[in-house]
Amino acid sequence: MDKLKEFEPIFYPKSVAVVGVSANNEKAGNHFLRAMMEFGFKGKLYPVTPSTNEILGLRAYPSIGDIPEPVDFVNISVPAKYVPHIIEDCVAKGVPAVEIFTAGFSEVGEEGRRLEQEIAMLAKGNLRIIGPNCFGVYCPSGGLTLLPGANYPRESGNIAIIAQSGGLVDQLIPAATGHGLRFSKIISYGNACDLNEVDLLEYLASDPETRVIAAYLEGVKDGKRFFEIAKSLYGKKPLIIWKGGLTESGKVAVNSHTGSLGGEKAVWEAFFRQTGAVMVDNAEEFLDTTAIFSHFPQVAGRRVGVVGGGGAVGVATSDICERVGLKIPTAPPKIQEQLRALLPPAGTSLRNPVDVGSPMPPPLVFQKVLEILFSGDIIDTLIIDRIFFYGSLQPMGIPEADAEKRVEVLLDIKRRTGKPILAILDEPAPDTDIIDMEVNRRRVRRRLIQAGIFVLPSLNRAVKALANICTYYEKASFSHEEDGNKA
Amino acid sequence: MDKLKEFEPIFYPKSVAVVGVSANNEKAGNHFLRAMMEFGFKGKLYPVTPSTNEILGLRAYPSIGDIPEPVDFVNISVPAKYVPHIIEDCVAKGVPAVEIFTAGFSEVGEEGRRLEQEIAMLAKGNLRIIGPNCFGVYCPSGGLTLLPGANYPRESGNIAIIAQSGGLVDQLIPAATGHGLRFSKIISYGNACDLNEVDLLEYLASDPETRVIAAYLEGVKDGKRFFEIAKSLYGKKPLIIWKGGLTESGKVAVNSHTGSLGGEKAVWEAFFRQTGAVMVDNAEEFLDTTAIFSHFPQVAGRRVGVVGGGGAVGVATSDICERVGLKIPTAPPKIQEQLRALLPPAGTSLRNPVDVGSPMPPPLVFQKVLEILFSGDIIDTLIIDRIFFYGSLQPMGIPEADAEKRVEVLLDIKRRTGKPILAILDEPAPDTDIIDMEVNRRRVRRRLIQAGIFVLPSLNRAVKALANICTYYEKASFSHEEDGNKA
Repeated sequence: MDKLKEFEPIFYPKSVAVVGVSANNEKAGNHFLRAMMEFGFKGKLYPVTPSTNEILGLRAYPSIGDIPEPVDFVNISVPAKYVPHIIEDCVAKGVPAVEIFTAGFSEVGEEGRRLEQEIAMLAKGNLRIIGPNCFGVYCPSGGLTLLPGANYPRESGNIAIIAQSGGLVDQLIPAATGHGLRFSKIISYGNACDLNEVDLLEYLASDPETRVIAAYLEGVKDGKRFFEIAKSLYGKKPLIIWKGGLTESGKVAVNSHTGSLGGEKAVWEAFFRQTGAVMVDNAEEFLDTTAIFSHFPQVAGRRVGVVGGGGAVGVATSDICERVGLKIPTAPPKIQEQLRALLPPAGTSLRNPVDVGSPMPPPLVFQKVLEILFSGDIIDTLIIDRIFFYGSLQPMGIPEADAEKRVEVLLDIKRRTGKPILAILDEPAPDTDIIDMEVNRRRVRRRLIQAGIFVLPSLNRAVKALANICTYYEKASFSHEEDGNKA
Repeated sequence: MDKLKEFEPIFYPKSVAVVGVSANNEKAGNHFLRAMMEFGFKGKLYPVTPSTNEILGLRAYPSIGDIPEPVDFVNISVPAKYVPHIIEDCVAKGVPAVEIFTAGFSEVGEEGRRLEQEIAMLAKGNLRIIGPNCFGVYCPSGGLTLLPGANYPRESGNIAIIAQSGGLVDQLIPAATGHGLRFSKIISYGNACDLNEVDLLEYLASDPETRVIAAYLEGVKDGKRFFEIAKSLYGKKPLIIWKGGLTESGKVAVNSHTGSLGGEKAVWEAFFRQTGAVMVDNAEEFLDTTAIFSHFPQVAGRRVGVVGGGGAVGVATSDICERVGLKIPTAPPKIQEQLRALLPPAGTSLRNPVDVGSPMPPPLVFQKVLEILFSGDIIDTLIIDRIFFYGSLQPMGIPEADAEKRVEVLLDIKRRTGKPILAILDEPAPDTDIIDMEVNRRRVRRRLIQAGIFVLPSLNRAVKALANICTYYEKASFSHEEDGNKA
């Protein structure tokens, strides 16, 4: 619990000072101040600059030492050479923690490395540092955002992300928001001259707000401790890791990016095998896998039922599921009989995948198909692909209201069964100027996500995430049994 | 050239009769008629029904035989049992070709199989059939669309797609339109009781409108001829094949979908090896690979230059490129020196991937970086990832006009160098109700695509398509050399 106390000023500061602002409002510190105000930080904000005594309506102070009240957290974005001086001021003031946006430290060579060591020495035992060369901390429940996160979700969630790279964080959050991901904490920690991935992971392991931890890592400073903590999380909080630099070209790039060592591929493979952490290797898989862990409770197994309307729903879906190790059990005769009584004889398929013949099945038929499929204990997860839940279908003479009714059928089934359901809502993109379909898609997506239905834009992405979560829980339950036997 | 003549009534009919309409305008034939009128078919349309003498303002005829003028093409959607009778009428009238939407033939069992044989027998030597159990033909230059394709692009392109599945076609076209794909012909041919994938491939091989051929296949009826034609296309027109049913579950599903045989995985692997056709295995890869062949002229090689701004641009991009077999050559010292003079010392990377430090580089810096990178003969293709080309960036104090200038820089570089350029414009999706960014993204996407720049929403998808086209042209040029040696 000491960890929680120690990190409190970082995630839930009562007061934040900002060093690196100017009267003309053009510096990074000014942008950060504006972002914090827009985001709605409830604590006190202290701009620090000798050049003016008011910034954005806030009283400015010439130095940290001049602030009359205690300061919990300091955001620093002055040029690298001035940073040691600011750290000294913070130590003198008794500030417990800072985040340093400034780049130009160990990642640029010898002089930078020396400067980074200097600030680490000054801080040691006195204050904790996030950075330098980072985007810092986003913690909506603490009212804290990073730059340029003025518009990041104010709503809190159960996902924590750690990444050396700040740019990646700013790429992921906007992409994640619409897909329903919400975060407890996101930390871009850059060069990690003090707090590194191990410290952050240790904190998140005990953070009551965090249920799923995802990390983009280029290097790890203390491999042994990282391994121990990752292993201890196994079966408690899922840990998803995108390890950059596992290829030869990637390894070369790591060195110039953060100055840390990439590590060998074989070492990382052993790490994943032994810790049960989930390995992903691109941005979509990182987000999708993290999202499915956040959305779904423990998944019972990899038996998938698929319901779709027409096209290659049966064949292509079967291929795509089997390739990632999911199973498509054939519906037993009794279920096929019930479906046969319901669906047209031509253009449909009853065995699972269930092809209802058209992406616009009558709502009552759609409802009964789902009920029948869930009636036997043959599937763990339901995938809905190629069913229209929005949009005007007038050219086909099918009432638009039916699409809305299909949404209600799906929400109702979810409510009644509680089963994991995954719906594919693909990007329609019919033409640049036709934006209505996209607006409708997002509205339906939000409703489904809020009801606990997992939504992704492509089957291919969805099955990968589902396979990842299945593998994790299979391993995790095995691990629990092992523990049980030992006890 | 006989092939072109033979298929003329199918793709460029002067008159189309529609059988399967009713006075109340609710039948599939009525929807098809409406779609054709909305799409702008320039020839004559003849609704055929005894129930009324006018439909949608068009004179209706009691039977095919009652139409006073010649009929090139007939669209049939009456119930299966009436189809043989309609085929007899068509033969008597001298109609050269029909498309049969109606399902309920060989895919539903013995009786359907008998009925399908009957229509094939009636047609043999008299007329050509597309279908049954299909969505038919889309050919914008012939003014022809399929159901429900009233809003499919009227503009023609150089891509042909053939697919047994009609639902898949209706899934792909809307998804493809916004990504800039335009088509010469798309044919959903269903059960293929007469014209099958081999006939269609043979036609498309000589079709002057078609430069790229893509096929979704579940089974092939005449494997030997298909192989011969595929092989003859090698190096002339790229052939992209998504073969459904290559897994065990997929194979089972094939049988119930179209009643054709799926074929063994090993056979298909040999097919791809020997014909040089490009194998893809999901919807995104199918579209992306087809699109890149349509957009790009012959690609010289797999040496990729990457320019991006911040985040994991260097490391993750290198990994993702290397995993699919692309190469990221390190920039030689001279180029690194030139870049060093231009970019800030911290937060950037000069070796390739070139990290310009921020997704919002000043337009002039962005321009010079691209010029420098293209100045040595070190790269074949340029990937632009994580550069902002649209959107208000006010919170960071960077003028919105700069984004527009970066678009112009990129367009200008493309004009001047003619080099293959691939830009990643990821879906921002910041929140359900914030749609402006998506509107802006689509506008920029359209401008880049029109200038010959290939645009995809994710790096992961883009590199797969690029690797596919590289592999194809490497094989194809090798094959030409072989031919040369033999001659």
